[in-house]
Amino acid sequence: MNAATALEDRAARADAEDPLAPLAERFVLPEGVIYLDGNSLGPLPAAVPPALADVVARQWGTGLIGSWNDSGWWDAPLRIGDTIGRLVGAAPGQTVAGDSTSVQLFTALSAATALRPDRPLLVTDPGHFPTDRYLADAVARRGDALEVRRIPPADLEKFLADEGSRVAAVSYSPVDFRTGELCDMAALTEATHRAGALAVWDLCHAAGAMPLHLDALEVDLAVGCGYKFLNGGPGAPAWLYAARRHHDALDTPLTGWNGHASPFAMDRDYTPAPGIARARIGTPPILSLLALEAALTVFEDVDLAQLRAKSVSLTEFFLTCAEELFTPLGITPVTPRDAARRGSHVSLRHPHALGLTRALADRGVVIDMRAPDLLRFGVNALYTTHTELLTAAQRLSTIVRDSSYDPAPARSGPVT
Amino acid sequence: MNAATALEDRAARADAEDPLAPLAERFVLPEGVIYLDGNSLGPLPAAVPPALADVVARQWGTGLIGSWNDSGWWDAPLRIGDTIGRLVGAAPGQTVAGDSTSVQLFTALSAATALRPDRPLLVTDPGHFPTDRYLADAVARRGDALEVRRIPPADLEKFLADEGSRVAAVSYSPVDFRTGELCDMAALTEATHRAGALAVWDLCHAAGAMPLHLDALEVDLAVGCGYKFLNGGPGAPAWLYAARRHHDALDTPLTGWNGHASPFAMDRDYTPAPGIARARIGTPPILSLLALEAALTVFEDVDLAQLRAKSVSLTEFFLTCAEELFTPLGITPVTPRDAARRGSHVSLRHPHALGLTRALADRGVVIDMRAPDLLRFGVNALYTTHTELLTAAQRLSTIVRDSSYDPAPARSGPVT
Repeated sequence: MNAATALEDRAARADAEDPLAPLAERFVLPEGVIYLDGNSLGPLPAAVPPALADVVARQWGTGLIGSWNDSGWWDAPLRIGDTIGRLVGAAPGQTVAGDSTSVQLFTALSAATALRPDRPLLVTDPGHFPTDRYLADAVARRGDALEVRRIPPADLEKFLADEGSRVAAVSYSPVDFRTGELCDMAALTEATHRAGALAVWDLCHAAGAMPLHLDALEVDLAVGCGYKFLNGGPGAPAWLYAARRHHDALDTPLTGWNGHASPFAMDRDYTPAPGIARARIGTPPILSLLALEAALTVFEDVDLAQLRAKSVSLTEFFLTCAEELFTPLGITPVTPRDAARRGSHVSLRHPHALGLTRALADRGVVIDMRAPDLLRFGVNALYTTHTELLTAAQRLSTIVRDSSYDPAPARSGPVT
Repeated sequence: MNAATALEDRAARADAEDPLAPLAERFVLPEGVIYLDGNSLGPLPAAVPPALADVVARQWGTGLIGSWNDSGWWDAPLRIGDTIGRLVGAAPGQTVAGDSTSVQLFTALSAATALRPDRPLLVTDPGHFPTDRYLADAVARRGDALEVRRIPPADLEKFLADEGSRVAAVSYSPVDFRTGELCDMAALTEATHRAGALAVWDLCHAAGAMPLHLDALEVDLAVGCGYKFLNGGPGAPAWLYAARRHHDALDTPLTGWNGHASPFAMDRDYTPAPGIARARIGTPPILSLLALEAALTVFEDVDLAQLRAKSVSLTEFFLTCAEELFTPLGITPVTPRDAARRGSHVSLRHPHALGLTRALADRGVVIDMRAPDLLRFGVNALYTTHTELLTAAQRLSTIVRDSSYDPAPARSGPVT
């Protein structure tokens, strides 16, 4: 048996034995496409089109204004927040859905630093997703005595040893959006707490992909998007978690009327609602929000530990394919081999990443890239198969060996 | 001919002669319902369900991540912004759609006061919609030397005579959300400018209901929602206008990555995009945003001056009905009789406003109320008829005369 056949056999066996295989039926995936970009935009859950059609035709079209009560629109941010809470280890009443991740980051970082007013430093990751860095700067810029320090997670302990007593909050993501590297949330949260600071986590690349334990780790605040592993659709509303112990003192910067204790009393002054409801801002985009709610039904009866085990099996298998097929071709995996240090995507380095991504798309394999030289292969254990990953690896290998790609393609639109 | 017959004849004649009557076909309105709450939630435009079904099934389901370019998702906030711009007298490139009105107010008020850093006062209306007041306070709270002053529009000139040189910005709405009173945008904007301050307008209750002239009046910043007279659906994305002359200096507080000059370069620091694109924040809720875009097609070939003329005819007629039918019943109109001082809703005062609103709903007339004692009848000249208004008035008159309503009903849900 040659190497290729061995990989094919291994993939077929893993897929045949996969207890989660039937979950793929919960998605509408286009024929002939291997979709490995669910870490950027999750595919369409089959539950969404009928649910959204009902929201539009019956709830909006017929129910009209009455649907704010009768169809539960008003409560949707808290109800959907609780559903997301179950996926991230948060007991009910601590999570709210709505707005974009950027707006939620502004809220989380403002609120976290306001809880430590005597501490002047806000720590973020120099490798953090851009909006996390930009919003940290935005929060600091508006505070009198607040300064951002960009410290890689690996250097946090050392930094806190020197400066810990001056740190208000530490804002990290467990998964590096470029390399797919997973850091140790528990250890970093604990180190942050030892310094008396608050831990703020961005779970965009983690929620829905693995078990998370916000309550158990005593995380202070967290945010995440709705459109990656939660599959809520393009630009789906984001979410914010704030631990219950902080609610009474939680000082949010965007005091929109939806977060008022008595929104319809139209009071003269803002009085924050009790609990996580005070983190509501304005009227949320109900169509997008209820599409997200329908999308979250794909997680019903799904064991996140089992989902994570399959995700690890998939990324492990893809890294094996990469070693066997790509090593001679100058394509280098940058994602850790150690499963405990790996999220749910695998990144490969090649100088012609954009051209290769385009050539793969032309051959039915959808991935994305991060400039200048990273190819990202996102796996989602809800629908990705080992065989798909092998096919993707084989197609990439053929493309590189045959040089059948444009090494410097023109950009075809604003989104790369 | 008795008074009732005269009103019926007048309504029938006005409707028969109405050149805009065919526009009602652009909406899906439930049978047997007289919907007079479009000033709170616009009804479903017929163009929305097929457009949204296509966005979900084809653009998201089949196009997947590629639709950010191929279906124009990335450009949607600016494209839809320009479509809204045409309704508010804004040349292209000055309006962006996205986020909630509350978030846009935070941006507008922050940016306006940042443009006048040497002036310590932010003027808002004590009768402004709550979120406008709360966000003004939120902006002031974060600035070192910024203070909110609540000055009614009628007192602005006098206030500016004393304090004008200390005022950074004036934030008003042309339409009072309770009484429906319309103020003089041109005069107030001019007075604001004479003082060297910036004019920020909240057009939630005006955009789509009447011609507006943001460029011609040299308004500085404006915001509005997408779900009232724009009919974009529950919680439809809001919008922000910033006059082109301010773009280069426009300092937005929420520096999300979508507003970056090169969002996909993932730069270390935030560099604002040129033009109004810098007011983008995070990834927008595409399903809600493209539903709004489909909804805006109802305005194609609609002359806003003609729409306003019909709106005035409708509110004038309803006030006449009110005088004839309600005066003996203790229901008092609070909306000005002078059409030039009236927006597109009529408010009536009665101590049992909530009970009457419920009783009307039970009889197929949907209005809303504002605590404690205002009944709001919103007319939308795109679909409301004079005959509907007479029927609504007759039903209310019968309900009050027969006392066939609950004077103190229990609240049936969070939204009153």
